[in-house]
Amino acid sequence: MSTFRFLYNFRIGFNKKFGVVNILNNCYKSIRILSTMTTPHKLCMVPGPVEFHEDVLTSMSTPSDSHVSPSFIPIFGESIELLRKLFFTNKGQPFIVSGSGTLGWDMVASNLVEPGEDVLVVNTGYFGDSFYECLKVYGAKVTQAKAEIGDRPSLETIADILISKKFKAITITHVDTSTGVIVDVKAIAELVKQKSPDTLIIVDGVCSAGAEEIRVDEWGLDVVLTASQKALGVPPGLSIVIASERAIGVYKQRKSPITSYYASWAHWLPIMIAYESRKGAYFATPPVQLIYALNTSLKLITSIPLETRFQQHKETSNRVKDTIEAMGLRFIPKSREIAANGMTAVYYPEGIQALDLLPKVAGHNILIAGGLHKSIASKYFRIGHMGISVTEPNRGHIDKTIESLEISLKELGYKK
Amino acid sequence: MSTFRFLYNFRIGFNKKFGVVNILNNCYKSIRILSTMTTPHKLCMVPGPVEFHEDVLTSMSTPSDSHVSPSFIPIFGESIELLRKLFFTNKGQPFIVSGSGTLGWDMVASNLVEPGEDVLVVNTGYFGDSFYECLKVYGAKVTQAKAEIGDRPSLETIADILISKKFKAITITHVDTSTGVIVDVKAIAELVKQKSPDTLIIVDGVCSAGAEEIRVDEWGLDVVLTASQKALGVPPGLSIVIASERAIGVYKQRKSPITSYYASWAHWLPIMIAYESRKGAYFATPPVQLIYALNTSLKLITSIPLETRFQQHKETSNRVKDTIEAMGLRFIPKSREIAANGMTAVYYPEGIQALDLLPKVAGHNILIAGGLHKSIASKYFRIGHMGISVTEPNRGHIDKTIESLEISLKELGYKK
Repeated sequence: MSTFRFLYNFRIGFNKKFGVVNILNNCYKSIRILSTMTTPHKLCMVPGPVEFHEDVLTSMSTPSDSHVSPSFIPIFGESIELLRKLFFTNKGQPFIVSGSGTLGWDMVASNLVEPGEDVLVVNTGYFGDSFYECLKVYGAKVTQAKAEIGDRPSLETIADILISKKFKAITITHVDTSTGVIVDVKAIAELVKQKSPDTLIIVDGVCSAGAEEIRVDEWGLDVVLTASQKALGVPPGLSIVIASERAIGVYKQRKSPITSYYASWAHWLPIMIAYESRKGAYFATPPVQLIYALNTSLKLITSIPLETRFQQHKETSNRVKDTIEAMGLRFIPKSREIAANGMTAVYYPEGIQALDLLPKVAGHNILIAGGLHKSIASKYFRIGHMGISVTEPNRGHIDKTIESLEISLKELGYKK
Repeated sequence: MSTFRFLYNFRIGFNKKFGVVNILNNCYKSIRILSTMTTPHKLCMVPGPVEFHEDVLTSMSTPSDSHVSPSFIPIFGESIELLRKLFFTNKGQPFIVSGSGTLGWDMVASNLVEPGEDVLVVNTGYFGDSFYECLKVYGAKVTQAKAEIGDRPSLETIADILISKKFKAITITHVDTSTGVIVDVKAIAELVKQKSPDTLIIVDGVCSAGAEEIRVDEWGLDVVLTASQKALGVPPGLSIVIASERAIGVYKQRKSPITSYYASWAHWLPIMIAYESRKGAYFATPPVQLIYALNTSLKLITSIPLETRFQQHKETSNRVKDTIEAMGLRFIPKSREIAANGMTAVYYPEGIQALDLLPKVAGHNILIAGGLHKSIASKYFRIGHMGISVTEPNRGHIDKTIESLEISLKELGYKK
């Protein structure tokens, strides 16, 4: 302890003399971390939260700053602009709000849908089920286009339902994290434009944004909602939503009152407009440190062409899936074509269970996730491959994960 | 740059060899911060966010961890337990949810109040106005006990309204951050028990919890809602709510459906119970890093007797107010008795405005806040004195703030 006391005093002394307290604090902290470090960091290879870049983590510990300070306002404003870039939209309105990705459903259900209106949910798993529940809470009449586990509804099925009545909105879970199934947002959007052009196109991009291509303007999407902790590479705690001009128009012209307070765009829209024009404004205190971290991550993400980023996710996904397939394991998605590029959902081989495999892999300092879809939760596991683990292959995250999986299965007596 | 490249490579090399990458990362980061540091940190002396302890900031940059990992689950569970300690409750149910303090209003309005039920709002400023708006969104019939700006409704006024009809709940903004007025929660709670014992007692403790005494069990409170960024000393992004057994009972027995999805206790209650019993569970991804930070801060807070903490806030507040009074300035609260202990709201002296004073004080590296109450926003400023700025006087935050204020006023030509 006396060494630490010395360092602590040294820190204080230095602070008074040279004002470089941040530096010494950090070094001091590092030494303290060393003194308490007992286990190495386990790589977080679940389908969100993903591994975070060091610069993003540094931004998370930005010393306190007022939400209306001249230093924070441009960070918030620029983050809004960078989101436009990420989602290929010129006039879409980004929202950055304190909350989990789930809050985005409430925003859609309470701002865009009026009680009694019809909504079509394209459902490929747990998150489709939940979006359905959320819409019902706010009074929507919900029809579902549902497929068997591991499959997705065909365009024909969706088309048939779409023309059966007037739908205010269609919601599409781009990648359902519970099954790893990806749907073709572009094709569904085209179908909607053709069969039911007034229907708002809502995309749940929680497990896709930043890993899969999403072009808001070109595809004519009305809402893309997502969260910070997956391919955007920021710790959990941000609900991120992009709304098209059309969606904002629909919200503005709704006849019945908005059915939420915290999720109401009537509160958030003026805030986003203010910060983007580099002015402070107040509705509820924004999560300052998380927004500093988002800003850092979005700058890293947009510093290389997004097409390269999506391609990297595709290639890595194929490599992971090829290797797992070669081990003789089966995936939840029925074909490679409908499997997401940011995660892989895999059935346990016969005789091996969650309680066997997950701790074994964790023993190799890799965290992977169990199942989530209620009907088959105990039968499969999930691996995330998004963000820096994909775009910075020199970190070796993917290789270590696959190796650990292979060794763990072997240790459990699995043979192909 | 070559020095940094050297250090960077050194870091990588060390990582491979000894696995102490965290340490070197932090030192490397410190050196990098030094290289980019242009302006010193401005002390954040607004009434939230407050200055954060170094250990809390370190927790904010905890490397990625799964929300259901064996390392995170006990951190979440213990944080729930520590909140009970902070609020002096044995059986109250804490909720820790991703969101701002505002979300707590939605929780109250959508879980406890059924459409058409009467609620009495004790209103002492902007936050009373907003809680009123929130309750109306969810269908409550709201009556207000409102006072002039800087004052609070008398117990007699509240009693008269309370007996006029059957109120499902009474909401009390403990400290309204817009006016710095504190109300006597204990006395109002006693009054309610006497005049209308079935009425749920809801306390908005956003600007009081951790700075002012709040005894949930002894005072018979049903809900205390707060946020992370004020006297709890954690960056913004956590909505924290304590609900009494009675409140949970009322929620469970409600007849109409819960009117929110994201704020619904039907989703959050099982999560809190699971984590407290050291099991992972999923509704929406919790803000892992913020909860690590909350855990760190709650441990620091509860490591000294809470009575000492409240006394420190009272003494510091008096010192700040005495000094400002001695400068010849006037406060928004009409008397010291109804002024909060975690903040001070002060009228500008004649001839001096926000655009004069705030940048001047910021020039001395101190951030203070402008006005918030709509009717007088341009006429006053606010200083926060909560958390480590109060409990660790050796940091000199309070002295620096008062000094800078005094010098700035002098520079602007102000004479008592």
